[in-house]
Parts: sequence; structure tokens; C-alpha cells
Amino acid sequence: MSRFRLDISYDGTDFSGWARQPGRRTVCGVLEEALGVVLRYPVSLTVAGRTDAGVHASGQVAHADMAEDLDPGWLVRRLARLLPPDVRVRAVTPALDEFDARFSALRRHYRYRVATAPYGAEPLRARDTLSWPHPLDLEAVQAASDGLLGEHDFAAFCKRREGATTVRALQELTWTRDADGVVQAAVSADAFCHSMVRSLVGALLDVGRGRRAAGWPADLLRRVERASEVPVAPAHGLTLVAVDYPPDAELAARAEATRRLRVPRS
Amino acid sequence: MSRFRLDISYDGTDFSGWARQPGRRTVCGVLEEALGVVLRYPVSLTVAGRTDAGVHASGQVAHADMAEDLDPGWLVRRLARLLPPDVRVRAVTPALDEFDARFSALRRHYRYRVATAPYGAEPLRARDTLSWPHPLDLEAVQAASDGLLGEHDFAAFCKRREGATTVRALQELTWTRDADGVVQAAVSADAFCHSMVRSLVGALLDVGRGRRAAGWPADLLRRVERASEVPVAPAHGLTLVAVDYPPDAELAARAEATRRLRVPRS
Repeated sequence: MSRFRLDISYDGTDFSGWARQPGRRTVCGVLEEALGVVLRYPVSLTVAGRTDAGVHASGQVAHADMAEDLDPGWLVRRLARLLPPDVRVRAVTPALDEFDARFSALRRHYRYRVATAPYGAEPLRARDTLSWPHPLDLEAVQAASDGLLGEHDFAAFCKRREGATTVRALQELTWTRDADGVVQAAVSADAFCHSMVRSLVGALLDVGRGRRAAGWPADLLRRVERASEVPVAPAHGLTLVAVDYPPDAELAARAEATRRLRVPRS
Repeated sequence: MSRFRLDISYDGTDFSGWARQPGRRTVCGVLEEALGVVLRYPVSLTVAGRTDAGVHASGQVAHADMAEDLDPGWLVRRLARLLPPDVRVRAVTPALDEFDARFSALRRHYRYRVATAPYGAEPLRARDTLSWPHPLDLEAVQAASDGLLGEHDFAAFCKRREGATTVRALQELTWTRDADGVVQAAVSADAFCHSMVRSLVGALLDVGRGRRAAGWPADLLRRVERASEVPVAPAHGLTLVAVDYPPDAELAARAEATRRLRVPRS
């Protein structure tokens, strides 16, 4: 067996999220089933971002161990015919054994789309855009966002999961507005705790509407547990757009360093 | 009563086209019903482009006669709450009595999207993008397109309708390709006969795949009736993006000229 990287995109509307759940239609479930049909052996996927129900991806990354003589182009074409139109495997690429879609990831990049026009979201983008027909003070939102950058304990913005850290390094949180009044947040971090992007967006929209001061989201960083007054923005505005990995040479060097640490010293 | 312009967009997927049909869900039917509920009097819409089933619009234009004291902003907000998410009234604007969404229109602009990547269309754009996973010779397609520009009898590309002319002035037919292999045709004309854009795109994709020579589409302009060998591209790749009108001053002058012609000369 040999390791491969899979680049994946999906419309999350009709999925109960990435992670397999008995009796539910999940992205992982649909993909692993299609891979099993095409390859005739079971394939298990490890993913960079376990997105929630309704969240989309245009740049999701997973890895799987498959037969060494696999033709990646053939697999992409076979999956294109077999998979439903709401999930696509854009590329299959041979990867180092050291490549792990989850643990090798350096940064995850998300986008959140908000339509602020009085008429709401454009119909052809209604699936990945929140309709939020209110005036939005983008300067206040950006000032509040700048106060969140850096490494902090984001516990106030996290749905706690057993054993998971809530200390994260927020590297980008930038808001832009296009001509049609669609506001878009670009959010990047080393990793995100559960519901973190949607909680950040929910808090910042409260600032943008004038319900909270621009300093409020940063003040919440002092909390050690989830802040119940932070609204969680709806899932369908959120899309995982990219995941960054170190170059192969660095992955190999890292693995070598780990191996050396494990050698018992005499 | 006073005349108003309505700017409209819709996802055509779940509509049986623009035009009202008994027992079918149509864009005109849904809009006229919503207007009747909000205004409590019947409103009749005249539209620039009577799009077919499955065709979308981001820049459709209609006009209607409504009460003079109507507040356009109020109507937009009321309709935003009442209409389903797949159709939006983006703007309501007072118009001259001489403004006619259909007969005043100078140009209609359409866009056709084709995903040529081996994996097909991106899931979040699958509703308005044709999946066509084949190599496409864009130079040949553009050369063939250039040969169609100008005023011609487009009978070969038209589903004949009683009494409708098939002589049209094709003003733009430009193809571009983005980084993800999505090819987009921008198509503009004074007006289009029935199924004309989809027939042009169908013929040009045959050129792009090497099934026909680049000169073939222009050769078809000599035909006086529909060419059965021209494939009609699927509806869902097509979107009406804009309609051009003359400025108000010109509309008023035109109407004045028409009135003078009607005055019996002594």
C-alpha cells in the first residue's frame, strides 16, 4: 500500500457533516463507499477538517492508503462518474508516507459569506451565503477582528470537546465587501476548535449591527469556557477553502527527526 | 397607476421557466402571486427575457404598473420576506410610462458556464455550470464564434415560433477559461430567438471537441430552418446576466417621435 492525498470539494447542504455516522448521509461515508466500489477493497480516509453538518468545502484535503500501482487520473475519472454532483474528488496525488492530512496541516483557511442587501442572498449563491439584510459597520467589525489575532485561549468561542485544546493561533480575520453588498470573512488559523469560526462570525456580526462594542469579542478571550451570549452563525455561510502543508522535504526531515528521538540512546 | 422597473434574479433549477403555465411553478407565477399578496391588487409583469425551464437569471428586468404612492424600498423588503430563496426582487425603481422591459430593451447579455475539469463542476456551482469533462480547443471555439458575429438569419439555431423573426444581431460571443478549467461564454445580442444561445453553445462545444470544423457554425447561417444536427446545450449552464436600455431622455424622445407620427397631418 502507498499513501495518496485527495483534494475534495462538496456542497454541505445535504450532508450531515464530514464524519461518518450510522444511518446518516455524510461526506466521508459517501466517499469511502465510492472508493470501495471502484477499488474493491476498503479505504479509510483521514481528513484535515471535520466539517459540521451544512458546512461546505472547496479545498478539503484527506489522505488514504491505496494500492501502489493505482493510476490517480483513472481514479479521479471513475469517481467523477460514480459520485453524486454534490461531492467531487478534484485530484488524487501520490504522497510521502509521512504525509498526514490532519496532523501535517500547518493552517486551515475558511471563508464566511454574508449577504447584507435588503433582498438577501443571490439565489444562485443562497446555498453558501447567509441572508442577513441589515446595515453592517464593516470598520467596527474589522477593528474587533484585529483584536482577536494571535495565539489565545478561544474557549469562549468553542463547543468544548473532551481533551481538545482551545488554545489556537488566529492568523487572519479579514472582512471585505463586494459591489452587491456581499460581505466575506477570510479566517485562517493553525487549527480551529469546534464551532470556532461560526462563533467568531456570530460575535462579529453582533458588533457590525451595533449590538456590541468593538472591544467585546477580545474581552471574551479571558473566559475559560464557552460564552453562552455568543451567537453561532448558521453553518451554510461557511466554506473550508484551503489547507496548507509543509513541502515534502520538510515532512521527510520532520519524520527523520522523530525517528531519531525514538532510537534508544546507548 | 404608475410604471415601475423590477430587477430580478432567480435560480431556474426548480422553475418551469419564466412564463406562466397552469399547474406549473414558474418565475412569473410566483412573483405575480407574491405581488398580489403584498399589494392586495393584481399586478401583471412584462419581462425582458422569457427564459426557458432551468435557465437562471442574475439580471432579469420586468416592468409593472402599480400604485403611484408605492414605496419601492418597502416593497423590496416585503418581497424579500415573502418570496422563496430561489427568486429575489433586487430592486424596484420608478420608470417612465414609455419604459417597456421587453420592447425598450437594446441588448440582452447571457453567460454560459462549462466545467471542463476531469472531475466535473464544483459542487457549489453545479446548479449553473455544465459538467463537460473533455479537452476543449478554446482557440477553435473562439474562431468559430467570431464567424457568427453581426446581423444574420439565425434560423439554423432557432426553435421556430409562429411569426417571430430569426434575424438577429449577435454583438458578442467571447470565451474565457479560469484557473479551475471553467470555460465561460459571454453572449450578447439585440434579442435572441428561442433556444438560440443554447444552440450556439452546443454547436461551438462540438467544434471545441474536434467533432466539427471551426467554419461549420458560420456555414449553418445559410440555412432557412432549424438545423437538426445542432445539439442544444443543457439549460442549467445558462444565465441571463443583464439587459441594456436607453437612457430616460432617449426613451422620452422616442415616445414623442412616435406620438408626432400618429398626429394626422393637415
